[in-house]
Amino acid sequence: MKIPEICLSRLPVYLNYLRTVRTEYISSREIAKALGYGEVLVRKDLAYTPAEGKPRRGYSVEELKKAIEEKLTCGNLKRAAVLGAGGLGRALLAYGGFSRYGIEVVAAYDIDPLKTGAEIAGKPVIAESAMRESLEQLGVSLIMLCVPASAAREAAASLEGTPVKAILNFAPAQVSAEGITVRNLDVAANLAVLASMI
Amino acid sequence: MKIPEICLSRLPVYLNYLRTVRTEYISSREIAKALGYGEVLVRKDLAYTPAEGKPRRGYSVEELKKAIEEKLTCGNLKRAAVLGAGGLGRALLAYGGFSRYGIEVVAAYDIDPLKTGAEIAGKPVIAESAMRESLEQLGVSLIMLCVPASAAREAAASLEGTPVKAILNFAPAQVSAEGITVRNLDVAANLAVLASMI
Repeated sequence: MKIPEICLSRLPVYLNYLRTVRTEYISSREIAKALGYGEVLVRKDLAYTPAEGKPRRGYSVEELKKAIEEKLTCGNLKRAAVLGAGGLGRALLAYGGFSRYGIEVVAAYDIDPLKTGAEIAGKPVIAESAMRESLEQLGVSLIMLCVPASAAREAAASLEGTPVKAILNFAPAQVSAEGITVRNLDVAANLAVLASMI
Repeated sequence: MKIPEICLSRLPVYLNYLRTVRTEYISSREIAKALGYGEVLVRKDLAYTPAEGKPRRGYSVEELKKAIEEKLTCGNLKRAAVLGAGGLGRALLAYGGFSRYGIEVVAAYDIDPLKTGAEIAGKPVIAESAMRESLEQLGVSLIMLCVPASAAREAAASLEGTPVKAILNFAPAQVSAEGITVRNLDVAANLAVLASMI
């Protein structure tokens, strides 16, 4: 069953919440209340996972967590890399939170010879000139794009024709690449939206 | 005019796109096409800003950029700080991209005495024990929460009764604090959503 992107985006929210739940069972009503969602929405979202609620008891918290994780990882381990080993890139390379989604961050690429050759958190920083070959060798399908905005378009285009299928773009610039899905994550823009709400 | 959060979230997308435009004028149709939005949606979104399109010419790109920036910053400079000076916190402290939204990142707070007392990118890392007083002194209204998931709830709660009005939560945990708006930005979850789309 193909899950719409908007529902998919909520699955990690359920997962993070369920990780804080200390009971054995939970109802869709309780989940809805805790997260501020409608109950119907919760039931529809969770119907995209293999989890099944039991009448009067609701979902087994453990089963539901596994079901959501399964839906999110599709059972396959995927390999990711960072393009641009500046402050954010290095922080992402060292961050351990990707593994619970079945994602392994395996390398970083950078154009700056002062940065390449070193290891961060046990992962190599590789010269951009060797990137295409390395992406093939490592089987990287996901890129976290952390280059400056001025370099983002060109960097994204350089991923065309590699095994990369998706880019999480942290640069405050619109990027696109043939045959590659792009999702934007502009941290400053997120903070600006929040700032203008208060 | 109160702008819905969903429209607000798109304003940085327009802004980033407009920064790449080299013509003097642009129509809502051209913007819609470039961003993959509907034309009606674009017109409605932009109607929340003070910008006015001219018949047959469209919007002045410069005026539209200023109008969106004005809407996003509300004309006020806001002060932000980082709570949790680990890899991500340090990267955010050093990142220069907030100023174009009228946000100044002024300090970081951390519980670890090995991290406090130092400066990162010219900004002090202050002991969490001195945080409440410091938030008052500096007039910080925005917090980027970068502590580990296990510490996130307590850290958010510790901001109650301070000048902080909003939290951008990077920790993979649900947090809440009385009188404070929370927006979640779970990087791993965003990558997981993208990974499950490919």
